[in-house]
Amino acid sequence: MKRNILTVPIQKVEPGGASVRAQDLVAVEEPLQIRLGESDVAITMRTPGHDRELALGFLFTEGLLTNPEQIADVHVDESGAVIVSLIDGSAPNLDARRFYVTSSCGVCGKASIDALTASGCAMLPAGQPKLSGDLVPHFPTRLREAQAIFEHTGGLHAAGLFNTSGELLYLREDVGRHNAVDKLIGAAFLERRLPLHDHVLMLSGRVSFELVQKAVTAGIPIVIAVGAPSSLAIETALRFGITLIGFVRRGHFNVYAGGDRLIV
Amino acid sequence: MKRNILTVPIQKVEPGGASVRAQDLVAVEEPLQIRLGESDVAITMRTPGHDRELALGFLFTEGLLTNPEQIADVHVDESGAVIVSLIDGSAPNLDARRFYVTSSCGVCGKASIDALTASGCAMLPAGQPKLSGDLVPHFPTRLREAQAIFEHTGGLHAAGLFNTSGELLYLREDVGRHNAVDKLIGAAFLERRLPLHDHVLMLSGRVSFELVQKAVTAGIPIVIAVGAPSSLAIETALRFGITLIGFVRRGHFNVYAGGDRLIV
Repeated sequence: MKRNILTVPIQKVEPGGASVRAQDLVAVEEPLQIRLGESDVAITMRTPGHDRELALGFLFTEGLLTNPEQIADVHVDESGAVIVSLIDGSAPNLDARRFYVTSSCGVCGKASIDALTASGCAMLPAGQPKLSGDLVPHFPTRLREAQAIFEHTGGLHAAGLFNTSGELLYLREDVGRHNAVDKLIGAAFLERRLPLHDHVLMLSGRVSFELVQKAVTAGIPIVIAVGAPSSLAIETALRFGITLIGFVRRGHFNVYAGGDRLIV
Repeated sequence: MKRNILTVPIQKVEPGGASVRAQDLVAVEEPLQIRLGESDVAITMRTPGHDRELALGFLFTEGLLTNPEQIADVHVDESGAVIVSLIDGSAPNLDARRFYVTSSCGVCGKASIDALTASGCAMLPAGQPKLSGDLVPHFPTRLREAQAIFEHTGGLHAAGLFNTSGELLYLREDVGRHNAVDKLIGAAFLERRLPLHDHVLMLSGRVSFELVQKAVTAGIPIVIAVGAPSSLAIETALRFGITLIGFVRRGHFNVYAGGDRLIV
């Protein structure tokens, strides 16, 4: 059985700057391929476990399967993909897919990280810029102060682009965290600021692969989040030399990758 | 300018069952179409505001645009779509899209709700089943008790399927909230329990359109969430007769739609 939790080494920083090596448990995030008959229907980023049910629930809620009697077999093949085979005469109506699609949702190809490399994304310059550990707790505080909508509705994710002195350059909010980050990067793109090698991306929630992927693409070397990162977010940060900091709360924070940029 | 917050009428229920009519602010969620040259590239569910930047950030992080000099014009057309026109000779390489895509991410066609109707989803039976208001705060408590992973990692969304007596039938967890719900519905599908007309879907986080859409598809009449719903989640619940309850905290909760099933 595939594991859904992973133990990772972290650097735990306390108020005042004391820092210890520790271990943390993170949720596993991995791509799952879903195949219906001969068709590759989707690849979704998920936490392993109940993969057959995930595939069936996805196919049903997308309107591609309507009842269990259509199914001849559901199995996981040697590559880990879920294959749903239909009984003779029950052809899936792929045109029935109700919704147009985007890839901006933490969904990616099997070799997610390799795909980033293949598309030209490179390691970020090691050890620079430097960021003072004392400043880290300032970022979420500043983000919250600047947030216009969240305070009222509790319903929005926020993303902030800062410089390493802690100055907020852009704040964007959205029901989708990927959109909030796209809005930031789009603003910087329009103003010809890319790559953002001297900047910090601050996120109000958790960190999935997709968000680190966007940081890699825009050349942002430091990602700070209020919430927890996924396993694949950490792996991607390590591969591209991104500093990934999570669980920034009451002066404490965890460093999951790229501690060389941090002065503590 | 499009609004990013909406005021909605709610029923506010307090511990002990006292209930008042009130107003709440919710984040707006609406589809945005992104077009690159002649191609419809994506429709993403977003909160209105900074739409041009969202489109550019999306196209850049997807590898479809590489630098601002390629752009001849970016404008919002009369339908609300963002149209990115390229300068002559700068053809978008749509094959460059790095990631395979799924619709399971709150992404949908323009007429999101109409599409659900067109695919055969009907109004749920009015006023049934009944749910005791006293029981509502029990659902998130029970979900948290049963959660295996979240407590350890802080990184996972949970979804629970309950009956109206408050008994937990399935619990599923995932880095993607849509996956957690698909896993539940897939389990019920396999066991031939659909439609789930006597059941309650309990969510650990916020409620987007996509999650209500999945409830509609599976026939689940009651959705309860710890967090806030989006505008389109509420609109969809109203349209299909779903009881939508949010912000269940310390015995308080808000009823956004379908209060007729609730006994308070």
